[in-house]
Amino acid sequence: MKQVVTFGEIMMRLSPPRHQRLTQAASFEVNYGGGEANVGAALAGLGVPAAHVTCLPAGELGQAAAQSFQRLGVDMRHAVFAPGRRLGLYFLETGASLRASRVVYDRIDSAFAHLDPAAFDWDDILKNAQWLHWTGISPAVSAAAAQALRDGIRAARRLGLTVSADVNYRRNLWQYGRRAQEIMPDLVADCDVVVCSENDADDLFGIRPAAAAENHFASVANQLMTRFPQIKQVLSTRRKTQSASHECIKGQLYDGTYLETSIYDITPVVDRIGGGDAFLGGFIYGSLHYATPREALHFAIVASALKHTIPGDVNLITVAEVEHVLQGDTTGRLVR
Amino acid sequence: MKQVVTFGEIMMRLSPPRHQRLTQAASFEVNYGGGEANVGAALAGLGVPAAHVTCLPAGELGQAAAQSFQRLGVDMRHAVFAPGRRLGLYFLETGASLRASRVVYDRIDSAFAHLDPAAFDWDDILKNAQWLHWTGISPAVSAAAAQALRDGIRAARRLGLTVSADVNYRRNLWQYGRRAQEIMPDLVADCDVVVCSENDADDLFGIRPAAAAENHFASVANQLMTRFPQIKQVLSTRRKTQSASHECIKGQLYDGTYLETSIYDITPVVDRIGGGDAFLGGFIYGSLHYATPREALHFAIVASALKHTIPGDVNLITVAEVEHVLQGDTTGRLVR
Amino acid sequence: MKQVVTFGEIMMRLSPPRHQRLTQAASFEVNYGGGEANVGAALAGLGVPAAHVTCLPAGELGQAAAQSFQRLGVDMRHAVFAPGRRLGLYFLETGASLRASRVVYDRIDSAFAHLDPAAFDWDDILKNAQWLHWTGISPAVSAAAAQALRDGIRAARRLGLTVSADVNYRRNLWQYGRRAQEIMPDLVADCDVVVCSENDADDLFGIRPAAAAENHFASVANQLMTRFPQIKQVLSTRRKTQSASHECIKGQLYDGTYLETSIYDITPVVDRIGGGDAFLGGFIYGSLHYATPREALHFAIVASALKHTIPGDVNLITVAEVEHVLQGDTTGRLVR
Amino acid sequence: MKQVVTFGEIMMRLSPPRHQRLTQAASFEVNYGGGEANVGAALAGLGVPAAHVTCLPAGELGQAAAQSFQRLGVDMRHAVFAPGRRLGLYFLETGASLRASRVVYDRIDSAFAHLDPAAFDWDDILKNAQWLHWTGISPAVSAAAAQALRDGIRAARRLGLTVSADVNYRRNLWQYGRRAQEIMPDLVADCDVVVCSENDADDLFGIRPAAAAENHFASVANQLMTRFPQIKQVLSTRRKTQSASHECIKGQLYDGTYLETSIYDITPVVDRIGGGDAFLGGFIYGSLHYATPREALHFAIVASALKHTIPGDVNLITVAEVEHVLQGDTTGRLVR
Amino acid sequence: MKQVVTFGEIMMRLSPPRHQRLTQAASFEVNYGGGEANVGAALAGLGVPAAHVTCLPAGELGQAAAQSFQRLGVDMRHAVFAPGRRLGLYFLETGASLRASRVVYDRIDSAFAHLDPAAFDWDDILKNAQWLHWTGISPAVSAAAAQALRDGIRAARRLGLTVSADVNYRRNLWQYGRRAQEIMPDLVADCDVVVCSENDADDLFGIRPAAAAENHFASVANQLMTRFPQIKQVLSTRRKTQSASHECIKGQLYDGTYLETSIYDITPVVDRIGGGDAFLGGFIYGSLHYATPREALHFAIVASALKHTIPGDVNLITVAEVEHVLQGDTTGRLVR
Amino acid sequence: MKQVVTFGEIMMRLSPPRHQRLTQAASFEVNYGGGEANVGAALAGLGVPAAHVTCLPAGELGQAAAQSFQRLGVDMRHAVFAPGRRLGLYFLETGASLRASRVVYDRIDSAFAHLDPAAFDWDDILKNAQWLHWTGISPAVSAAAAQALRDGIRAARRLGLTVSADVNYRRNLWQYGRRAQEIMPDLVADCDVVVCSENDADDLFGIRPAAAAENHFASVANQLMTRFPQIKQVLSTRRKTQSASHECIKGQLYDGTYLETSIYDITPVVDRIGGGDAFLGGFIYGSLHYATPREALHFAIVASALKHTIPGDVNLITVAEVEHVLQGDTTGRLVR
Repeated sequence: MKQVVTFGEIMMRLSPPRHQRLTQAASFEVNYGGGEANVGAALAGLGVPAAHVTCLPAGELGQAAAQSFQRLGVDMRHAVFAPGRRLGLYFLETGASLRASRVVYDRIDSAFAHLDPAAFDWDDILKNAQWLHWTGISPAVSAAAAQALRDGIRAARRLGLTVSADVNYRRNLWQYGRRAQEIMPDLVADCDVVVCSENDADDLFGIRPAAAAENHFASVANQLMTRFPQIKQVLSTRRKTQSASHECIKGQLYDGTYLETSIYDITPVVDRIGGGDAFLGGFIYGSLHYATPREALHFAIVASALKHTIPGDVNLITVAEVEHVLQGDTTGRLVR
Repeated sequence: MKQVVTFGEIMMRLSPPRHQRLTQAASFEVNYGGGEANVGAALAGLGVPAAHVTCLPAGELGQAAAQSFQRLGVDMRHAVFAPGRRLGLYFLETGASLRASRVVYDRIDSAFAHLDPAAFDWDDILKNAQWLHWTGISPAVSAAAAQALRDGIRAARRLGLTVSADVNYRRNLWQYGRRAQEIMPDLVADCDVVVCSENDADDLFGIRPAAAAENHFASVANQLMTRFPQIKQVLSTRRKTQSASHECIKGQLYDGTYLETSIYDITPVVDRIGGGDAFLGGFIYGSLHYATPREALHFAIVASALKHTIPGDVNLITVAEVEHVLQGDTTGRLVR
Repeated sequence: MKQVVTFGEIMMRLSPPRHQRLTQAASFEVNYGGGEANVGAALAGLGVPAAHVTCLPAGELGQAAAQSFQRLGVDMRHAVFAPGRRLGLYFLETGASLRASRVVYDRIDSAFAHLDPAAFDWDDILKNAQWLHWTGISPAVSAAAAQALRDGIRAARRLGLTVSADVNYRRNLWQYGRRAQEIMPDLVADCDVVVCSENDADDLFGIRPAAAAENHFASVANQLMTRFPQIKQVLSTRRKTQSASHECIKGQLYDGTYLETSIYDITPVVDRIGGGDAFLGGFIYGSLHYATPREALHFAIVASALKHTIPGDVNLITVAEVEHVLQGDTTGRLVR
Repeated sequence: MKQVVTFGEIMMRLSPPRHQRLTQAASFEVNYGGGEANVGAALAGLGVPAAHVTCLPAGELGQAAAQSFQRLGVDMRHAVFAPGRRLGLYFLETGASLRASRVVYDRIDSAFAHLDPAAFDWDDILKNAQWLHWTGISPAVSAAAAQALRDGIRAARRLGLTVSADVNYRRNLWQYGRRAQEIMPDLVADCDVVVCSENDADDLFGIRPAAAAENHFASVANQLMTRFPQIKQVLSTRRKTQSASHECIKGQLYDGTYLETSIYDITPVVDRIGGGDAFLGGFIYGSLHYATPREALHFAIVASALKHTIPGDVNLITVAEVEHVLQGDTTGRLVR
Repeated sequence: MKQVVTFGEIMMRLSPPRHQRLTQAASFEVNYGGGEANVGAALAGLGVPAAHVTCLPAGELGQAAAQSFQRLGVDMRHAVFAPGRRLGLYFLETGASLRASRVVYDRIDSAFAHLDPAAFDWDDILKNAQWLHWTGISPAVSAAAAQALRDGIRAARRLGLTVSADVNYRRNLWQYGRRAQEIMPDLVADCDVVVCSENDADDLFGIRPAAAAENHFASVANQLMTRFPQIKQVLSTRRKTQSASHECIKGQLYDGTYLETSIYDITPVVDRIGGGDAFLGGFIYGSLHYATPREALHFAIVASALKHTIPGDVNLITVAEVEHVLQGDTTGRLVR
Repeated sequence: MKQVVTFGEIMMRLSPPRHQRLTQAASFEVNYGGGEANVGAALAGLGVPAAHVTCLPAGELGQAAAQSFQRLGVDMRHAVFAPGRRLGLYFLETGASLRASRVVYDRIDSAFAHLDPAAFDWDDILKNAQWLHWTGISPAVSAAAAQALRDGIRAARRLGLTVSADVNYRRNLWQYGRRAQEIMPDLVADCDVVVCSENDADDLFGIRPAAAAENHFASVANQLMTRFPQIKQVLSTRRKTQSASHECIKGQLYDGTYLETSIYDITPVVDRIGGGDAFLGGFIYGSLHYATPREALHFAIVASALKHTIPGDVNLITVAEVEHVLQGDTTGRLVR
């Protein structure tokens, strides 16, 4: 099978044990993650060849980040190691009940933000690939990252790959002088599959549900597909957060027809990070292995639900585990 | 008070911290347990003299296993230490929400499986005993273990002890060329008290509820007692698993009359292993201390419920704690 | 802003990791706390100048206790270090579900119990203070502690400070020959703000709800204010414990008018200790920063609810976090 | 083989991880130990039946202390559990290089100090014993402990046991109104084997080396044996502390003839506590298993040297390990 | 006593447990330190009032850094908290034997580097101070930091304080366009006490030992005092590193006369960081408490030697501990 | 550069923290290692393409073992995953001073022992390889493993690869009915580079130093090369174990000429396992990168010395680190 290639930053994640506050911590647990690499790792774990393209600092810390994904079977050969740069970090405080989990970013001026777009030979990178996935985080980080991404998407189109994006709009990140609204449309226009919530559609593209629409998501997705005709599927996870320890999620898909899954109830939430990445990883797997978008969507939402029970950024599950739940067993009964 | 003697394998349990997957673990928590020894340890903790009979490898690991139960007051003098053998292991991954906990066994060719039945002088072992307890795991492990067990049960009968069994049918374990259906009837025939679910009754003895039976468990238990007239009480825990973090359990008993307890709701589940052993430990304690099977059954189900909150295989609770819940306080209110 | 001064014992808290029983522990987590110092630390964290007055043993352990609060910004200059004395300890076992958390005290003959009342120059201690807070624990510990407290309260009255007390009656603690009923009325008589449950009002002051009272708390509070005319506000948290992992709390206040908050549902409970101290810390903060008792009460109950999610005795939260919940968001949604 | 019985206090030991100072510790490692119980546990580990007599608080902590030794095979049936009492504690800070390790005691008013001498039926306790061992710590703790010890020694003499003592004079401990110099001679007079350094001989008995003596230890031991004719062997470890991480020890014995071992060099020292107890445990083992005092002495010093490499109070070694070193291999070469 | 004020950056230190490499770490131990704050904390621990002046990021991480020193008694009131900035970090890998410990810095663009010199009101900060201490790290970080330092030194001179500096030249740090050789002379010219090795004297000031000098350090120090007449004492630690686990250090001082201490041998080294800061903390303490530079120098070198045995950046020792070693006991013998 | 291919078993290593005995451990640290895979991982870390060929159990544990090496950059594509088999384990107790470290194997009946030789297509596996490395462990494990190895060696010869072996004779391992002396000569005959100590030469091949030989190693190596003319280089590490914490090692090579390195002194030893594998990994690296055997030998011994300071089985070092020591700096001086 050909590779799924992901592009984006990998950060070190530092989190106090259990539910300690950052100010209490005498130690941090260390993980490595990134919204795109997490998708690649999930796919590799499901048996889909995956490669991740990124820029890391030369030295121990960049090496540790790369090894962390290499371990999970992600092809890291295309990672560029830049001397004299730093690794982006984030601190994660794990809440409980009515106390929210908190992320504190320290990712400014990372090696990834300072990457050299010319360092990526996309035709070579994508020559054995069938799919390119990116998120709206990368073009937010720097002009250079946006440029490298644009090059990659164009090569992917040229080579006939499927392109997917999680638009994932985070206002705070766009700090290099360009607005998301200027940059994103051009990038999204070349995508086949897009994860986009109603809020993001409004913020990024000024698209709102038609006044008369009964199904707001379908209305928005429909407009998005009209505006960007390359898009064939629009996805979203709808999340109802009961507390920091309890989430309810369902998946939505519009491809002309509207589909949604049942609601999955997750309590306790072991790790809140990476649920969206797991959803997309599951959807790409499903798209490559099942006959219908419906099956892919259901695979995706169960994969995402399971991710909430796994420590770290990355979804470490098997196809058998997802299918077991898909067959209706959400009881978590002991397996011997 | 005379001893309750248990017979069975003790294994080392290795479990990743918190909810990590086995592939993530940089360390394992170490516990020692076994379905029969857990009953003995629970009884010792409740003040009932208990002895455990087993075969362990000579050397540090067998010694660690024995010490782990000796610490809890279980008389380990009858443990045989066999040179050149290995200790059975199991790996436990602790799930959460809809992700199941998983047990991976590595117990083949253990010292226990290779035990020498002649090494156990049952008349001596049982000379100060009032009760012998075993489970369906032991005869599944090897012909030698089945033989040692048969010897023990016969001696117990001869000496007038009460004999109890948790039939606990695990198809995968029976690998030495004999089927459970050949071996178990003979062993169960000599028991006074049997834990047997409806599924196990069907699988092992081909006993199914009478077509017209309103109470399936009572129907099955009744047939079991007819088939094996030595049996005076049939027990079961009925478990409704909501998720890996949430169990609902109740106890059932049939001794001519059907009894059941109310349902105990356990959330979160701290440790899923050993709930059945705790139930039986509680029932033996209750049988020895209370006037009625009803009281013993209620003691047993509360003991089992509490076990779900205690890390490790063994139920570490006091009589006072069980009685406190039996008196109606399931609130877990802080005790100062 | 002038200081809030608290007076009371600080103990070392030793707790087994996760839900281990005390007999299982190969290590203990170490925290320091005390019902009054916890209030001071909560206030310091909210930006209110706080000082704590206590007696600790000279040497490493007393120093560690003092440093623990100094770290949080509590002014510890008035702590007296007594040579040759011991630090009070308590062991905390964290329950789950229907298994209760348990506190085992080892605080007899602590440095605090043996304090010298003459060592505290209250006029100096209180000269930059606006508020003195104490609890019913201190006068229970020893005659010396009761005397020091009485001196402090008198000085506070003389200097025109607000005085608050959490009467917190613990029968077991009163072991030095005097009964709470003899000692407490005199101390409470000089207070402006009192936390007192209906049970404590009955036990300490023989005050019970009027036969015809619809609102028992208001009836009791009203009688308390009649008996002790200095009291202007009576507070209480009403706690409905669902299990060791699940609490429901609401706040009550009577100042002529009865006020109560909505119920906050906390699941899972991360740390059960210090919820009442957090409530009072929040109330003092609220009283100093908001126009109405209603606002102070609501701030207090949310502060207390949040405390249940934070490891250790002390409430480590910010004003912004409380206000976020007060504005209606109890969902604990991830904050990036 | 008949039992060796030891009598003395068991304390909980709390130590910061690695080389942290007490004020730095966010957790403590938990062990249980006592100078006499450590001897019993070492003997049990070497295969000698051992029982320990003590008084512990009723409840979880006393139970944990007892279980800790029960695990190692020490017969704890004669332990008395006293309600309402506390467990003695000590805090251990592990130094390194020129920074000394430090012990901070918190053992005042322990259950052991308040024991009831009448609770020990020494004739019953010693009926299957061949040896009674005690140390100078016990009579230092309280008059009651001294009385219980005196009763035990007398019973031992009456029953013809060997009695050994480590006089272990610690000036600070004697706080109940009697001086060691008043109490100890009477107790030592009934001993067969005594560990006594030259300093202790001077401090306790006013015995100093004869002016002309070349061998000070032999001179002192000789006088001790003259003064107390029951004593047949006087032992000592001579310790040359190079640093907190590096000890040199040798063993000395006088029984009319002077014997000494070669010097054992221990670097790094893993755990400084219990080296003397290990020495005596080794000597008792050696006395029971070897033909000559010389062999017993050599076994003892190697056992003590090995103890310095084992975490916790107790010496966890095998006869084979000691004999391996005795045969000349101190290289610690990897054993597969 | 008046305060000693220190000025400089505080960083978060992240280190893998034990001797793990950075790429192996599943967790990091967290400490906070800085070359100047470490001096302040050491002084506070020795009983000298100390305040630290710095700029930290607003938010949890800056707060944690400040609390870490506040805990040790350092007055942190003058710390400025800058919104939107990051905390400098460093990663520390602890070597052993011939494998070196390694520091990886990630301190670029920290809040400290971006401080606003106008935010520090030095006349107010220093109004109760007797001594200002700085290091050559601060002016290396940014022009702003150099400016703030220059302001502070001038105020100190104006107010008649003693000023000390550890020139500590690190070539890699000077990256903002100015060279150390341009900046440092002006700052050093106002100092009374300077720590300066022969290498630093050459690199920073072009000062080399006179050709004929027997004592190179004295020759260099003498030239330094001639060039900068305000300097009255030049100090240095001479370090002979045997391995990552074994250091030999001695102290040197020139104030017209040359003094040196004996060599202290430290094995194993527990923590290599902060030895120089401990030396200067000790020297300032000694200068304030002893009559002669000789005594101060000896106190300083012992303080530094002890620091090598203490985890973290900061020297946590008492005057009594230093004096015990000064009196000749370097054996680290157990203290009970 | 073409790959170096290694063939052998990977085991899970379970070790108690610090210097705990196996019987004390409440947790185990988890690593994965094997004498041949360790060589591959060391080479990958030094930048040499490496692939490892093995048989692992299907399922989580086999996956974890494979991922552990995949993380370090070892190509694991040729690993075979066998359903229904177990992973070999070993328990490692880390000694100190005169207490030896101990390995307890539990590797019987592992997936590797039961491998199917036909599962390895050696022509395919070796098609991009330049070197095949094996050890005497593999043919000891089972006839199947010996057969697979023989196939691999023959393919390697046929394809013109360099073949190296560490003969590593462990008498206890040979349990499947064939003696090493029957099997090994045939395998060694096809090797170019052999690690063989004088003891192993005697035990395996009956080769002893010539009576008159001054240099025993050279004499033995010379005979070995005469007996097996394909062998061009014979290597050995000479180890002088001072204690479990202190090793002295040097490297020896004979290729017609005798070469040896100076002695490297390692104290403390952090991890004793894998020193020999690191030596060979270093030698292969050196052979591929340096002009002379002398350089390769020196690189190898320094690589091995550094390994003793790194936790786990695998040598995690860089070329720069080895070269730094080779240039004469064994001081382990802090690197910033």
